[in-house]
Amino acid sequence: MSKFELVAVPLSRSAFEPFGDVIETAGDPPSLINQGWAERYHDLAQIDVTAAGGRPLVDLVRTRPRTLPMSIKMVERHALGSQAFVPLARARFIVVVAPAGATPKPSDLRAFTTNGQQGVNYRPGVWHHPLLALDQVSDFLVLHRGGPTEDCEELVFTADEITLRL
Amino acid sequence: MSKFELVAVPLSRSAFEPFGDVIETAGDPPSLINQGWAERYHDLAQIDVTAAGGRPLVDLVRTRPRTLPMSIKMVERHALGSQAFVPLARARFIVVVAPAGATPKPSDLRAFTTNGQQGVNYRPGVWHHPLLALDQVSDFLVLHRGGPTEDCEELVFTADEITLRL
Repeated sequence: MSKFELVAVPLSRSAFEPFGDVIETAGDPPSLINQGWAERYHDLAQIDVTAAGGRPLVDLVRTRPRTLPMSIKMVERHALGSQAFVPLARARFIVVVAPAGATPKPSDLRAFTTNGQQGVNYRPGVWHHPLLALDQVSDFLVLHRGGPTEDCEELVFTADEITLRL
Repeated sequence: MSKFELVAVPLSRSAFEPFGDVIETAGDPPSLINQGWAERYHDLAQIDVTAAGGRPLVDLVRTRPRTLPMSIKMVERHALGSQAFVPLARARFIVVVAPAGATPKPSDLRAFTTNGQQGVNYRPGVWHHPLLALDQVSDFLVLHRGGPTEDCEELVFTADEITLRL
């Protein structure tokens, strides 16, 4: 059995580019709207959910926090749709991903820590671990694909021991 | 000039049914997902954004708080798409709406106060005031329609004085 250490690094748009979008107010300056009462940060995620009769699906997900280090035993992917997670408690969480495409090896995994103000949007097919909250029970708005076709493929790592650390 | 008093009442799904969806964890019990680590509150908003070549558009909007009582001078509508607002600071805000359809009179307006855990999704064509944060500068995730056609109609109330109160 091989052992892998997966260390979470700070999430940024440039580092996350192979996997999707970071939903945050950093970056381009906002435009003023609502007679000057509000600032708009525009078009932050490529929502891609209409394949195979799909539609935008909005869920709220409440997740218990994990304690790190922890073992990563699986990832999953949704080939037909993007999937966005925006934290409502403005709490940090961990993102574990591997590029869309061939079955990832443990060494293909990347881990990121959000800063508490960031959400993410996975492109269709990007491998990812289910939500990993830290510190507290955390609510997320989830924007993904609803449709007639089931679209979740799981990959279980059996031969390797993968440890996720901060 | 006529004077109208518009008093905000607590937001609930039943009261908001003529206007759209309340995005909240109340109501149907959640399902367990992620090997029991999370609860999912499912399919909370009817996202309707594909008319006339539209697509789902994700913005973040940061808005300054208002002080009530305040004067309501206008509402707007988007005939081609729904528009959802989910507060990221988990702070209460005020929703001012009138039913889709004919030009509303001041007496057609309704006002609701959210409980800090609720978002809203306006159906296409529902008249609404721009975001009305209270208490603090507040960030919102906005999920609406992007498309080649401009889709915002404003209605300015000129002959009436409308006062919004808690």
